[in-house]
Amino acid sequence: MRNLLMKVNYDGTHYDGFQTQPQGNTIQDRLEQAILHLTGEALKITASGRTDAGVHAYGQPFNFMTSSQIPLERWCLALNARLPQDIVVTEAREVPLSFHSRRGAKRKTYRYTINGNRFPDPFQRRWQHHHPVKLDIPAMQKGLTHLLGTHDFTSFASRKSTKTSHVRTIFEAHMEIDRSMCRPDSVDQGVIHTYITGSGFLQHMVRIIMGTLIHVGEGKYHADKVADILAACDRAAAGPTAVSKGLALWSVEYDEDGI
Amino acid sequence: MRNLLMKVNYDGTHYDGFQTQPQGNTIQDRLEQAILHLTGEALKITASGRTDAGVHAYGQPFNFMTSSQIPLERWCLALNARLPQDIVVTEAREVPLSFHSRRGAKRKTYRYTINGNRFPDPFQRRWQHHHPVKLDIPAMQKGLTHLLGTHDFTSFASRKSTKTSHVRTIFEAHMEIDRSMCRPDSVDQGVIHTYITGSGFLQHMVRIIMGTLIHVGEGKYHADKVADILAACDRAAAGPTAVSKGLALWSVEYDEDGI
Repeated sequence: MRNLLMKVNYDGTHYDGFQTQPQGNTIQDRLEQAILHLTGEALKITASGRTDAGVHAYGQPFNFMTSSQIPLERWCLALNARLPQDIVVTEAREVPLSFHSRRGAKRKTYRYTINGNRFPDPFQRRWQHHHPVKLDIPAMQKGLTHLLGTHDFTSFASRKSTKTSHVRTIFEAHMEIDRSMCRPDSVDQGVIHTYITGSGFLQHMVRIIMGTLIHVGEGKYHADKVADILAACDRAAAGPTAVSKGLALWSVEYDEDGI
Repeated sequence: MRNLLMKVNYDGTHYDGFQTQPQGNTIQDRLEQAILHLTGEALKITASGRTDAGVHAYGQPFNFMTSSQIPLERWCLALNARLPQDIVVTEAREVPLSFHSRRGAKRKTYRYTINGNRFPDPFQRRWQHHHPVKLDIPAMQKGLTHLLGTHDFTSFASRKSTKTSHVRTIFEAHMEIDRSMCRPDSVDQGVIHTYITGSGFLQHMVRIIMGTLIHVGEGKYHADKVADILAACDRAAAGPTAVSKGLALWSVEYDEDGI
């Protein structure tokens, strides 16, 4: 038996998230079908975590135990040939039998992308939240700093969260502005990427953070209100849940060397 | 009567090119339908040129005469509300009645994009030719320099070309390599953009140039063979026509100030 760790990129537009659902239209279902097709093994994969419907991923780790003897270097091509074009496996390696891609994850980074330009981008529209309203980026950055550190993030969690603790740690967070597609004239404010790195994330956490920060950017909330929202431990205190299409799992880090 | 010049970005994946076709699934048809819907005018637009089925564009100019009194600043939003999401009008301005977006075009730039990484990119796959074969980029760049200047490009034109002259001028051509999505390990060679600027282009010209350059990059042709191919004035001398999805009209320039 081997424990294989793989990484997968996917455009989540047409899927109901990562984790298996009864109707079967998930990334996990597609991966497990491809593995079944390739090896004949009806197995369950373990991922670094869930993603919501419509959320994307770059290099999301998943692992599974297999008795297949297929050489390591052939797995990616063989699985990609059996996967739809919007799901691409990019890495495969053998890891110790004890490795677990969810329990072992130490740091996860999500990226949320707002297209702040006047018009949507027909090429990138599936993974950008088009929001052509003037945003005060320094205020949003200031709001973001209130989330750094270890806090109870109940205000930024879905009411449907079933977790016993909502305490999580945000290690890093920053914003980057890409002006490469701005028209020279113009009121375009660029494509705004927000990167948030934490120990783990609650359901809808990044999207509620972003909905709240957009309110800060629009001047509806003062940047320091983010601290009050956090202290309230009440979902009703925070802003709306930003649309899922702007969100991508950006990276997952492990303690183990080279993983 | 006003002469309006507009610019349009489109993901050409699902269209039969720019110019009107009997079956009606073209960018021009969609734009004219949106204008009809908005103004009630069944008019014909003039574009800077055609694009083939599956080819994309960034800022392709088109113009038309209208008696509509809709203020200039309202046209883009009004048309975009009536267009599919993969076609976006980004600029509208009034130009002299004598302006003609095809006849007035002095320089056109096309960009052809090859994804040379081992695996396709699920996010950019619709506008990249995935070609994970090792390419000799310096040889391709050398091949490209043989095309600079004024030549008869019959070898690089579709046999269906109906033009009386195949003499065109290439002003500039260069390649750029984007390694931002390469995996660190790895045999990935990056995303390779080739930009070609000329006075005008024959049917399939950029795609045949790229099919030929890919043969150079693979070592099937010596870089200097490009000069021989050009001199042959025979389509059979050149390489294959590269797939349309990698091609985008990148910019069109006019002599007039500010257009």
